Amino acid sequence: LTYRLWYWPGIPGRGEFVRLPLEAAGVAYEDCGITRGEAAVVAYLDAQRRQPAFAVPLIEIADGEECERIAQVANILAYLGPRHGFAPTDERARRYLNQIQLTIADLIEEVHRTHHPVSVSLYYEDQKPEAARYASDFHERRIPKFLDYFERIAAANSSGWLVGDAWSYGDTSLRLVLHGLTFAFPKRMARILPDYPAICAICGRTGALDGIAAYEASDRHQPFNDGIFRHYPELDG
Amino acid sequence: LTYRLWYWPGIPGRGEFVRLPLEAAGVAYEDCGITRGEAAVVAYLDAQRRQPAFAVPLIEIADGEECERIAQVANILAYLGPRHGFAPTDERARRYLNQIQLTIADLIEEVHRTHHPVSVSLYYEDQKPEAARYASDFHERRIPKFLDYFERIAAANSSGWLVGDAWSYGDTSLRLVLHGLTFAFPKRMARILPDYPAICAICGRTGALDGIAAYEASDRHQPFNDGIFRHYPELDG
Repeated sequence: LTYRLWYWPGIPGRGEFVRLPLEAAGVAYEDCGITRGEAAVVAYLDAQRRQPAFAVPLIEIADGEECERIAQVANILAYLGPRHGFAPTDERARRYLNQIQLTIADLIEEVHRTHHPVSVSLYYEDQKPEAARYASDFHERRIPKFLDYFERIAAANSSGWLVGDAWSYGDTSLRLVLHGLTFAFPKRMARILPDYPAICAICGRTGALDGIAAYEASDRHQPFNDGIFRHYPELDG
Repeated sequence: LTYRLWYWPGIPGRGEFVRLPLEAAGVAYEDCGITRGEAAVVAYLDAQRRQPAFAVPLIEIADGEECERIAQVANILAYLGPRHGFAPTDERARRYLNQIQLTIADLIEEVHRTHHPVSVSLYYEDQKPEAARYASDFHERRIPKFLDYFERIAAANSSGWLVGDAWSYGDTSLRLVLHGLTFAFPKRMARILPDYPAICAICGRTGALDGIAAYEASDRHQPFNDGIFRHYPELDG
């Protein structure tokens, strides 16, 4: 069984939600955007005939002659989690984990709109007034609403993880979100994070997992830059 | 086994993605927003302690003493589909169907931003210039990108349905999207829909299902109005 991750090179992006649990669980994969380059990702998407994907990230699972392609972060993680021990064994708990991951996907979409409120095809510089208005609402209403939700879940689970009694992809996704928000909005996050001790503790525990610590210290780990999470001081509420 | 759907009354909204396949399959459910009123939905969300949901739609599955709550449209449909025959039996096909539903969720989020590009807390009237800019990009780039994707999938499947050889929740979701876009942007859709014969055919076939025809003719069926799909002539590209 061979895993090939297809995602844009140069940014952690949505691909990072897939990389983190694979790294934490010590599962081997080829990161094709990095090994083969951006043009290969474009060519790969263009070449799809049967069951095309709308976008990357996409994971390709090759098993001899057989090959399955799975796109959409939550769909990829729901497939990988139970197979590699980073989702609960209980089906009901797995559905709840999927629900959390889908809510994280909604948050990520909103984060992206802080710098691209009008169009993903235009530069941030061409939509700055709209971005300023959007970001103000995002800071005031949306960040607290999402973080309150995650904190309630974390505080209600005595294991010290988001769902069940061991780490899951929900914990690695939560760590990515908290790191990303802190990179993009350091002043804002410094003010509000003290109100969220349970999710901060999960973030710390996840970072202490051997696979995550090794990955984040490696040169495979791409820093935040101009992807989904961006730091523009004027948008730091 | 009793199903209770929790969603805001008065709009089809995201709840309609759940209602349609249940109606098509003849599965009984209580539509609690309608039977108990909006205040009951607010109270229901506020009362959640263990495993809270971020938002509705949410489906509650009561089985004697046992009660499970599932939120997020794609998560709800992935649960209901295989249990009521509106998802393929093959697991791989089910993953592909989930992938399509998640892409529809992304589109729905983009549709919502045509009239709320800056903030979901403000009225459309307070963000009209931003909405005009956003809608222009949405018409020019995003609608064709999404419809091209659905058309490729539909054209590649000889059964006349989106995935597998029978109708699934992918088909009811696609019908809702095409109806919604046509309600919101009638001029724009009239111009481009002729380029998409395969998905228009699926939309028609889905509407001819006994359960859908009966539901859409009933007074349970709520018309589009000021929900996700809204008709503002000035935004009709």
